[in-house]
Amino acid sequence: MIPADIKNTEIRDEFWSRKQALVRKEVIPYQWEILNDRIPEAEASYCMHNFKAAGLLNEKMRKKGDAFEAPRFTYRGFAVFPEKREDAKEDEFYGFVFQDSDFYKWIEAVGYALMTGPDPVLEETADRAIDIVCAAQLPNGYLDTYYIINGMDKSFSDLRDHHELYCLGHLIEGAISYYQATGKEKLLKTAERYADYVASLFGTEEGKINGYPGHEIAEMALFALYDLTGEERYKNLAEYFINERGKEPNYFEKEHPDMKGKPDYYHQAHIPVREQTEAVGHAVRAVYLYSGMADMARLTGDAALLNACEKLFDSIVNTKMYITGGIGATHLGESFSLPYDLPNDTAYSETCAAIGLVFFAERMLRIKADSKYADVMELALFNTVLSGMALDGKSFFYVNPLDVIPENCKKDERKTHVKPVRQKWFGCACCPPNIARLITSLGRYIYTEDENTLYTHLYVGSDTTKAVNGKLVSVSMESGFPNNGNVKIAVNGAKGSGFRLALRIPGWTNGKYRLDVTGASEKEEKDGYIYLGEFSESAAIDISFDMIPRLMAADSRVAEDNLKVAVTRGPIVYCMEGVDNGDKLRQIRIDKNVSFTEEMSGEFGYDVVTLKADAKRIIPSVSAPRPFGELYGEFSSFEEKEISLRLIPYYLWANRGENEMSVYINI
Amino acid sequence: MIPADIKNTEIRDEFWSRKQALVRKEVIPYQWEILNDRIPEAEASYCMHNFKAAGLLNEKMRKKGDAFEAPRFTYRGFAVFPEKREDAKEDEFYGFVFQDSDFYKWIEAVGYALMTGPDPVLEETADRAIDIVCAAQLPNGYLDTYYIINGMDKSFSDLRDHHELYCLGHLIEGAISYYQATGKEKLLKTAERYADYVASLFGTEEGKINGYPGHEIAEMALFALYDLTGEERYKNLAEYFINERGKEPNYFEKEHPDMKGKPDYYHQAHIPVREQTEAVGHAVRAVYLYSGMADMARLTGDAALLNACEKLFDSIVNTKMYITGGIGATHLGESFSLPYDLPNDTAYSETCAAIGLVFFAERMLRIKADSKYADVMELALFNTVLSGMALDGKSFFYVNPLDVIPENCKKDERKTHVKPVRQKWFGCACCPPNIARLITSLGRYIYTEDENTLYTHLYVGSDTTKAVNGKLVSVSMESGFPNNGNVKIAVNGAKGSGFRLALRIPGWTNGKYRLDVTGASEKEEKDGYIYLGEFSESAAIDISFDMIPRLMAADSRVAEDNLKVAVTRGPIVYCMEGVDNGDKLRQIRIDKNVSFTEEMSGEFGYDVVTLKADAKRIIPSVSAPRPFGELYGEFSSFEEKEISLRLIPYYLWANRGENEMSVYINI
Repeated sequence: MIPADIKNTEIRDEFWSRKQALVRKEVIPYQWEILNDRIPEAEASYCMHNFKAAGLLNEKMRKKGDAFEAPRFTYRGFAVFPEKREDAKEDEFYGFVFQDSDFYKWIEAVGYALMTGPDPVLEETADRAIDIVCAAQLPNGYLDTYYIINGMDKSFSDLRDHHELYCLGHLIEGAISYYQATGKEKLLKTAERYADYVASLFGTEEGKINGYPGHEIAEMALFALYDLTGEERYKNLAEYFINERGKEPNYFEKEHPDMKGKPDYYHQAHIPVREQTEAVGHAVRAVYLYSGMADMARLTGDAALLNACEKLFDSIVNTKMYITGGIGATHLGESFSLPYDLPNDTAYSETCAAIGLVFFAERMLRIKADSKYADVMELALFNTVLSGMALDGKSFFYVNPLDVIPENCKKDERKTHVKPVRQKWFGCACCPPNIARLITSLGRYIYTEDENTLYTHLYVGSDTTKAVNGKLVSVSMESGFPNNGNVKIAVNGAKGSGFRLALRIPGWTNGKYRLDVTGASEKEEKDGYIYLGEFSESAAIDISFDMIPRLMAADSRVAEDNLKVAVTRGPIVYCMEGVDNGDKLRQIRIDKNVSFTEEMSGEFGYDVVTLKADAKRIIPSVSAPRPFGELYGEFSSFEEKEISLRLIPYYLWANRGENEMSVYINI
Repeated sequence: MIPADIKNTEIRDEFWSRKQALVRKEVIPYQWEILNDRIPEAEASYCMHNFKAAGLLNEKMRKKGDAFEAPRFTYRGFAVFPEKREDAKEDEFYGFVFQDSDFYKWIEAVGYALMTGPDPVLEETADRAIDIVCAAQLPNGYLDTYYIINGMDKSFSDLRDHHELYCLGHLIEGAISYYQATGKEKLLKTAERYADYVASLFGTEEGKINGYPGHEIAEMALFALYDLTGEERYKNLAEYFINERGKEPNYFEKEHPDMKGKPDYYHQAHIPVREQTEAVGHAVRAVYLYSGMADMARLTGDAALLNACEKLFDSIVNTKMYITGGIGATHLGESFSLPYDLPNDTAYSETCAAIGLVFFAERMLRIKADSKYADVMELALFNTVLSGMALDGKSFFYVNPLDVIPENCKKDERKTHVKPVRQKWFGCACCPPNIARLITSLGRYIYTEDENTLYTHLYVGSDTTKAVNGKLVSVSMESGFPNNGNVKIAVNGAKGSGFRLALRIPGWTNGKYRLDVTGASEKEEKDGYIYLGEFSESAAIDISFDMIPRLMAADSRVAEDNLKVAVTRGPIVYCMEGVDNGDKLRQIRIDKNVSFTEEMSGEFGYDVVTLKADAKRIIPSVSAPRPFGELYGEFSSFEEKEISLRLIPYYLWANRGENEMSVYINI
């Protein structure tokens, strides 16, 4: 199965088109300014500066006619982000060691944006930027400005922490996107040359570097490059990276002897990948690896690898995922915690990790159309991914907690990773550009296809076509998601082609739907999809799913959620905010037989379904005197104040200023 | 007011005599083995080793006839505790920089133990140890083995982190205790010489070190030395330390320039002490400082200082104290968190901080007999301090959480400071010897006295005497605490002396008591004390307080405790444990009108009042299919399973193996 071609899928959806436009109009231009350090109030990036500096050094070398020599090596560390400085020198490196990737993510989003509609000014800007980036590449193909500027003698000497292969991965993904959008090969060739250089250096053979990326992404990027070019060497390199990970002794021990004897969960290098069954370590790294593993399983038919992917997917969704689709429960190592350990207030649930979960789910869907993958993709997308970006596209969450008391986040150091309002930009700017590249490439996640069948995973208003046995079938979808579950699909030109259309039955429907088909017949229901076939030349499909508010409870092993429920409606998870309900949300209790009223609200700039219900605010009545100071008193009874509880979609929280928020409600 | 003389107060209390015997029989001998590195399974101490090494160097110098010269300086860091090593060299320092204080705490407990009963073998051991310790002192009076061994050139160069003045404080406290117990002056003179040396070096005068302790305790120790010797110079040095703290610029910035511009809450050096109104920073440091401030306020009548002490005491008990009397809500910096931030599961609540709170409360009582101080002293003592030690006296808690799920403590790094069972011994062994010195000195906390009045703060079975106007009044108390509130006091020989007896009315009685007095008359009730006077030659007092189980609720600003209650009975806080109730304690709910049955249990080795009540275990009923994997399902109702809930005193938790525990219960 392959994903839909973004260029061939035009999104015109009331909900998603707005988000895509926001990324185009706000995020992409803003990020370009960031990359060039032109936003005074944001932390410095130095991304384009570094490419220019590396290009200058390159040019000097070329003029001298010498082979490139490492001019110096001055390690500046990577954990501390430098302050913006007036005295930045034109030939010095500044910022994080992985700063190059900021551009690569940006150009990837630019590519997707251009695929969905032309923008000559943006394209011109991108072309000029690509010239700068490509000029930084060494004659041998190497391209990482940190080492080009600071000294090539240390290149690939710290695979664990120095992200050269991570930057390669993002370069490839950005280059593919821009090539597919514009047909321009310059950046793609640069990416291929860097990949070829890496392929020449890495491997199990004597004299080669027997390592692999400290931060995964090159794996899935190389498979994508193989998918595009058909060049086996990229597939081989990706397979090599995946096969080596977790072998004894851990390669990273060579660079970092203090790791000896400690299982390397953080980099998913504790055991060989085919033996991994529990999602562990840095959550973004993990799902990027699992995505690459799924690509490899798809391309090679490796059953052991596929089995590991299935186990890891189940490990996440059955034991380590927040109800918002967020993953990575602890900020310590930005990692997965133990199964069922999902605290709501100290949650990490990084936006990028939810994005990585979308990648992983989408890759599993390419192997098998099972709605359980699409359910998780939709859940993460509508909740944690969207939560990452403010309504105006100008501020972002890195961390997506499910329970927030603003003062605690600011003053309790255990929670300082949790921000009660979205932030302008981050020094380590992974999340905003990641949101940008995901939302602009949404077209890829709506459909996958195989020879005869178009699989519909997300209900997003869009037009697409599919070639089947020499006929070009056009498919046009109207969707009320996420406000209602009414979907209309028109299929034209399919008669006699053998075309099949698979429609996902979302898990939150409990298998119920209303289907009305004209001009095609229902063939079967399998793995959460309805298969239609025997299309007439013109067919019309009405499918609708009830979106009703539901109380959801977590497995009782999630101690944090005992005696609490969350409210969902369709794919949307709801939350309560202080601005609607007053703070001290933990005093609120709902009845187990509560019923909700839906209200269409315009206060967020477009139609949003909010929920109302009767609830109680429980205020303990405490009698004086209090025996040990004022803090504790004898509980005598409680006042049960009737309140009207208002819930809004979780992804919209903190768009109306700083206040308390909670997804879970006492019951 | 002065505290009762331990030697003059014989404790014979069913509850406390057992704890004192445990410290004598188990803790003190075990600790001596630890100090000498003779417990193979415990972390190495090197405490006595270091004293011996310093003594050897001293002797060499004396033989050479040279002034002592710093032989070398090899800083080994102090944050990492060294492993036990076979190759320890006889003239090298090992362990934490504050390792000397382990001996000082031990000798302090030994002194108190000897005051309560002779033990010639223990005294002989102590005398020999004192010879070793005193031989380490330099001719000029300096005594800190870390710098004597590693190089005096760096002495007093890192007041913030290197604990030389902390060791001075513990040396003084240990020396006073041993002197009071035995009349032997050797260690006391050593302590005085070190104090004199420090006094000669520190001060605001030109050329002197204008600093103060990074870890407070010297302040209160020096006041105690002044109380004992009447030497003004010790009082002056303590006052200097207190007055300098918090002045601008922060002295520690001179040693650690990176502190510049950051308010130094951790060391309570953010503002001058008289301006401090909120308890902040490292909790043990804080209450040790406040204890010294209270000593100074008492000795000098400094109203501004007394006002600060009162404000700080209120800040703790009204906004930052767990219901168990534990303080220091966060493990980050072992510190106070913001007001009302008292999480139960990530709590720090260090045993030593509760001990320090007892010190602070006792010093406030010396200024004013107000039962609010004794209430907190009793609360901390019966709950968090006792929780620190296992029933067999062989293992200890450093951290005292109020909500524990063992697996989470072991695998969730956010909670690895929380241990689900008591530990053998700690490298940084502050808590076990601190418990030992507090429990052996309990006699000091029962009574304080002024000219005519004996104030009874704790009801502990004991005999004491008080000289009043030439008469020796004997007071004999029988107490049922903590199992029941029945107290009988016999007073003999008071006739015509003007003797008064003040009896505390515990805060948990809500001011209610039954009093039956023969041979004396009730004079007044003031600040939580009943004052009796006009004693006959022989008087008998029966006072009893109802101990009934009470539901207690925290202030609603303590978000963690919303919709939860704790159960107390008299001074004892109760908890539920998995071993009695099954795990998943967060599923348990009690009715607001719950009633408790008391049961006397013998399973802990002596009579303990346990509580039973009807409760419900709430198990959500979740319908399939679950839309996003197995973790979340639609809540349909819940099963309410009737259970018989058993509660035991909090201080006894984790004495029956590893299991869940929670103080708070859902309501």
